[in-house]
Amino acid sequence: MLNNARLILIGGGTCSGKTTIALAIGRRLHTLKTVIISHDNYYHDLSSMDRETAKAYNFDHPNAIDTDTLIRDIRKMLDGEAVNVPDYDFITHKRSEGKLCVAFADVIIMEGIFALYYPELLAMSDLKLFVDTDSDIRLTRRLARDIKDRGYDVEGVLDKYLDTVKPSHDAFIEPTKKNADIIIPGDREFDKVLYMLNGYLLYELVNEAK
Amino acid sequence: MLNNARLILIGGGTCSGKTTIALAIGRRLHTLKTVIISHDNYYHDLSSMDRETAKAYNFDHPNAIDTDTLIRDIRKMLDGEAVNVPDYDFITHKRSEGKLCVAFADVIIMEGIFALYYPELLAMSDLKLFVDTDSDIRLTRRLARDIKDRGYDVEGVLDKYLDTVKPSHDAFIEPTKKNADIIIPGDREFDKVLYMLNGYLLYELVNEAK
Repeated sequence: MLNNARLILIGGGTCSGKTTIALAIGRRLHTLKTVIISHDNYYHDLSSMDRETAKAYNFDHPNAIDTDTLIRDIRKMLDGEAVNVPDYDFITHKRSEGKLCVAFADVIIMEGIFALYYPELLAMSDLKLFVDTDSDIRLTRRLARDIKDRGYDVEGVLDKYLDTVKPSHDAFIEPTKKNADIIIPGDREFDKVLYMLNGYLLYELVNEAK
Repeated sequence: MLNNARLILIGGGTCSGKTTIALAIGRRLHTLKTVIISHDNYYHDLSSMDRETAKAYNFDHPNAIDTDTLIRDIRKMLDGEAVNVPDYDFITHKRSEGKLCVAFADVIIMEGIFALYYPELLAMSDLKLFVDTDSDIRLTRRLARDIKDRGYDVEGVLDKYLDTVKPSHDAFIEPTKKNADIIIPGDREFDKVLYMLNGYLLYELVNEAK
């Protein structure tokens, strides 16, 4: 166990492979207690907003995240306090007390499209990763996910992609690549990246903590 | 010491920061014997070519490197044989037997603009890094280097940059980013990258070799 919890931020565009890499890191760090959270659980509660306004709300904007609560919770986790990560319902846009309770984690992985956007989070973090995947590959993945898994129609997915997802990517997400310590290609095997992170966390941080 | 020598390839455009990162890796791996070579020592010998033809020769093309000799030497190094890395004189374009003798290295770092270009080298390598630096930053560094350190005039440097350096970068170097395991930003601090590589080499590889 480490003396102090470490925060790893994983940013990158929609469907770039952030969660896949986060899960793979968590699986490999078997001797360290690792927890993975997404900033998607911290969207502002819009349940009191009328349905039409909520429908037009831009979730692909960094202001859509309740960063005060997100940062407060991560700070607690880093201090070893127990935290209930909220649930977020994307149908009702309601945020409620969640079932995932985090306590005494060695490594906290926070992933999300805006993970490398907020200066306060960047300052708190130990390692900043950007998952870089070509935009066409990300679009094919998003189409597959939204159509197969979520039952959306093609036109709706493409309209949303062009209206908010892509402009937001270009304006807010792509520039955060400049905040990364390393950039991980999200379209190929990443065994070597996992070896490196593993070596880093188990060797450097544990040695440093001694 | 590792059971088998490891080959790390560091590619990236001109003045991206390849050598700086290679040296920093070498310095940190103090418990492992590390050697750094550049493929620039393996340019084809053009000393029998007449001066004008040699002057027009495109050194910014992957075919300008004598890959047969380069690959043969790296294979020997990986097998633990002693190798004299050749010297290359960029005035006379003559390659001669060098003074750097490599033997019993644990880690061989091979850097150069085409480091991630040749399939045979990629297949022999354990880790492939691409140093990614904005083209304008690379140009400012190259201007500073060629004018201050090498005494070239501005017009000459810019002409060469536009005539061969940039087209070659776009055609042969930038696409090799796709061959990298990780991409390292070359315009900021890279302590975290060094921690990771250190952890990887000292922890994963040594453990693996046991």
